Amino acid sequence: MIDPELLPLSGFSRAVFLERAKKLGRVLAQNDIPLAIIGYNPDLYYFTGSIQQGFVLITAEGRQAYLVRKDFERARIESPLEDIRPLRNFKGLKEGIVALLGRYPERLALSFDVVPVALYNRLRAVFTDVIFVDGAGLIRSLRMIKDKGEIDSIRKGIAIYDRVINNLPDLIHEGMTEAEAEATLILAMCRLGHQSRTRMRGWNQEAINGYVYTGRNAAVPSFLDAPLGGVGANPAVAMGGGAAVIQRDEPVIFDASPGVNGYVSDQTRTFVVGALPEKLKDAYHVTSDMIAAFEAGAAPGDACEDWFYKLERMADKAGLVENFMGYDQKRVPYVGHGIGLELNDWPVLGKKTAWRLEPGMVLALEPKMVFPESGAVGLENDYLVTDTGVERLSITDDTLIRL
Amino acid sequence: MIDPELLPLSGFSRAVFLERAKKLGRVLAQNDIPLAIIGYNPDLYYFTGSIQQGFVLITAEGRQAYLVRKDFERARIESPLEDIRPLRNFKGLKEGIVALLGRYPERLALSFDVVPVALYNRLRAVFTDVIFVDGAGLIRSLRMIKDKGEIDSIRKGIAIYDRVINNLPDLIHEGMTEAEAEATLILAMCRLGHQSRTRMRGWNQEAINGYVYTGRNAAVPSFLDAPLGGVGANPAVAMGGGAAVIQRDEPVIFDASPGVNGYVSDQTRTFVVGALPEKLKDAYHVTSDMIAAFEAGAAPGDACEDWFYKLERMADKAGLVENFMGYDQKRVPYVGHGIGLELNDWPVLGKKTAWRLEPGMVLALEPKMVFPESGAVGLENDYLVTDTGVERLSITDDTLIRL
Repeated sequence: MIDPELLPLSGFSRAVFLERAKKLGRVLAQNDIPLAIIGYNPDLYYFTGSIQQGFVLITAEGRQAYLVRKDFERARIESPLEDIRPLRNFKGLKEGIVALLGRYPERLALSFDVVPVALYNRLRAVFTDVIFVDGAGLIRSLRMIKDKGEIDSIRKGIAIYDRVINNLPDLIHEGMTEAEAEATLILAMCRLGHQSRTRMRGWNQEAINGYVYTGRNAAVPSFLDAPLGGVGANPAVAMGGGAAVIQRDEPVIFDASPGVNGYVSDQTRTFVVGALPEKLKDAYHVTSDMIAAFEAGAAPGDACEDWFYKLERMADKAGLVENFMGYDQKRVPYVGHGIGLELNDWPVLGKKTAWRLEPGMVLALEPKMVFPESGAVGLENDYLVTDTGVERLSITDDTLIRL
Repeated sequence: MIDPELLPLSGFSRAVFLERAKKLGRVLAQNDIPLAIIGYNPDLYYFTGSIQQGFVLITAEGRQAYLVRKDFERARIESPLEDIRPLRNFKGLKEGIVALLGRYPERLALSFDVVPVALYNRLRAVFTDVIFVDGAGLIRSLRMIKDKGEIDSIRKGIAIYDRVINNLPDLIHEGMTEAEAEATLILAMCRLGHQSRTRMRGWNQEAINGYVYTGRNAAVPSFLDAPLGGVGANPAVAMGGGAAVIQRDEPVIFDASPGVNGYVSDQTRTFVVGALPEKLKDAYHVTSDMIAAFEAGAAPGDACEDWFYKLERMADKAGLVENFMGYDQKRVPYVGHGIGLELNDWPVLGKKTAWRLEPGMVLALEPKMVFPESGAVGLENDYLVTDTGVERLSITDDTLIRL
């Protein structure tokens, strides 16, 4: 009944999904987990190419089945998986699991970071005597290493950001509110193919497609675990652009995540109508020095936390450690993060993390300096970790932008 | 350190929050629950006027304390609550609860529909021997009845939608993609004060600020529990506007939720460049007849499900029951829902629901007709249930819009 011509597809082949299921199967086997139940939209998409409501089941042998409640017909068009079945209820889920596994499971993996208690309790009522274990880390670790199709998608988002930055003088002007500038830039992104959706994982973590902060507003801390929060339209939103207007000689931050095919990029540029005070200009140059240091020095095997400490030492040397990634007590303990189907993919380039850079990781590095009295400056670029170093994916010039 | 001048406030007074806490306290007492732990953003805002990261604790006696991890200083500015304390960790949460309650709790309420298993397990590790019960229904029931400040906020969103509809000819034209039209209309909403955020409660339920669907694309079913889904930019998004363009003589649906002060409105109009085929025009008139029937007949005490059946019978009489709220097997079993801090506030005007209309409920009624071959038409208006009937909050004319 649905005309397949109407539906855009991921372009990922069945082989890609078979490979992903096999990889997850291997880590499930290592952890003695016979089967994972995966239903969270970004994870579901990663293993099926679709987010039609339901669950993809993956066994330790790498076998998979996608059980779909709504819309089954659409899932069959969107997903290249072979085994896609309609799902009516939790009894059907149980039967599907037993059928795929060939037996009643003793342990099942679920993503504890995103599955709500209500769903968990319904599953526990159906699977009595089953031990549920947290599979979020296994899936996030797998998703951390990107393949060619994923990297290509991220590159497309990066190109959108670049084109918007090149059009900034036509889009943005003095006197515009942050909120209007934000929506204007998002419209420009959508015109260029941005998917109008950005996902961020975790309890109460909300992301929109881009943020514009001006002057002191950029330095206002928020509920979000991010170096910059913003004032937002009201305290129910409490982040992003608000009613403040773009003023001469004040720094304006434009942090955005254009996305294509599910995958988001994440980049930041600082611009100013007029000129920045010397102090902020100097701080900006420290952030571009950090970018240069990372590009020259980062290599597979590096401890992710070391990059936080290295850049923090650069801030310290410049007398700006109190302004690095927030101000004083409100600094966040990281300077970069993975990007992909979510804005906060793994790894984190932050304090007390155990990750090392690995080929195939795609990272956003975002050194930012915050001055409560005058605003924030900084940069954010995207990188692919290669076999020998990092490849810069960002194509936009790193210089401070003067409008 | 934060200049309070920078921060917009909810405008809700301390008395409002004391009253809400008292009301929740009463239902907690009735359910033999000494204390509720509330941390989900919309609920947190409802009880504090802020969403700074942390938990508001409310006892069966109506006492409350807001424990804030990030940002404490900002929470103290945003929330008029008296008792706001910094929160460091789960041990601090435990101490705060015992201090507020004056004893170790035997039962604690949490919102099982939104709290992830990981957070639940951490709380269970801290509160051994405590029985956790689901408090989501108690909070959602309380939030269902709106006070004057809430209704005023929703009215502001409604006014934004009306102004955008009046500007449609300047904003939208034939040949524009759905995605561009969507982002253009969202920008127009933001210029008029829309908060650029729409929340929808529940597992995998994702909402954006507005949708534009054209022709057959509007009839494509999605993962979302909604009568219209849309194609979306790609299968990772799978809803909303996509690459299809606005074409002459095809219906275009614009469903949007401009929000102010945390509260969203929710309205839909159908427009067409040129003219609609007779069949769709007739179907549109059936939906406007449904709107008229509801406005004339709805009153407190009415069973919510009866309004679904009544309007379904109207569709049946018009020979359109197969097209009502979706097509054939893909029809959704409701025709309206509450609005407020979330797009899917309670109640639901749907099959097998137990609610009755009560004064203070604010509802969106959205009769829509879906034709797989040609598209969707329909209307959505917002209403306040009064002591004697329903007051129409929507101010936009109900006629089909010709551009």
